[in-house]
Amino acid sequence: MGIKDIDIKENFGKIVQNMDLKFRKIDDKELLIAIAIDKYKNVLMTAFMDKESLKMTLKTGLMHYFSTSRNKIWMKGEESKNVQKVLEVFKDCDGDALLFIVEQTGWACHEGYMSCFHNKVDLNTGNSTVIGDKLD
Amino acid sequence: MGIKDIDIKENFGKIVQNMDLKFRKIDDKELLIAIAIDKYKNVLMTAFMDKESLKMTLKTGLMHYFSTSRNKIWMKGEESKNVQKVLEVFKDCDGDALLFIVEQTGWACHEGYMSCFHNKVDLNTGNSTVIGDKLD
Repeated sequence: MGIKDIDIKENFGKIVQNMDLKFRKIDDKELLIAIAIDKYKNVLMTAFMDKESLKMTLKTGLMHYFSTSRNKIWMKGEESKNVQKVLEVFKDCDGDALLFIVEQTGWACHEGYMSCFHNKVDLNTGNSTVIGDKLD
Repeated sequence: MGIKDIDIKENFGKIVQNMDLKFRKIDDKELLIAIAIDKYKNVLMTAFMDKESLKMTLKTGLMHYFSTSRNKIWMKGEESKNVQKVLEVFKDCDGDALLFIVEQTGWACHEGYMSCFHNKVDLNTGNSTVIGDKLD
């Protein structure tokens, strides 16, 4: 690890510290809820972040999440190339959730829709109808 | 419990079953992430829901969440009267998050702001600036 790497690591650690977040113990990890929306305020997806994935998000400018099922950090688009570039970040009043405005390359949902929330629920039956075009 | 209560309970249980959700084990509870936005797509807040709080949300048409810190269901606005009336619901591709379009009475944040996400984070320092007017 070179001096520059240490600088970067410490610097982003300091930024995260200044953010004064309340990571919550979930499945024995310290996590917060991250929500990604586009500049038109469309909600693209939500997932968890741990401190390290947040640091990597800030460092690279690209959304990184923590997968509780795979127990690892993943960069959105690492396989699909549909990365999410961070534009703005908002913290909620409890400090346990972050709202990211992102520039989405391609589409957010692995099923090929712009948003992961493409299933509209019928409140009378609970059944879903797919909305939005499949882009993939 | 009268026949009508049983009918309602079973009916909403059936609706939730049809929604085909993947509640996730978080802090020994089965929870999913709920996001509330208004009809202008402003993200108001996020919190967890368990199956029972979802049923109560569907039954009453008013947002109910599950508090992991207080270990109980709470209705948004039960004290402040700033309730959230459900207009539409969207399920994400994994079925472990729900997006609710709501009609917010008053404001969503207990600090008196319309949205809980009223702290804009400076990406260079991690410090926050409050945005939006305090309505309370």
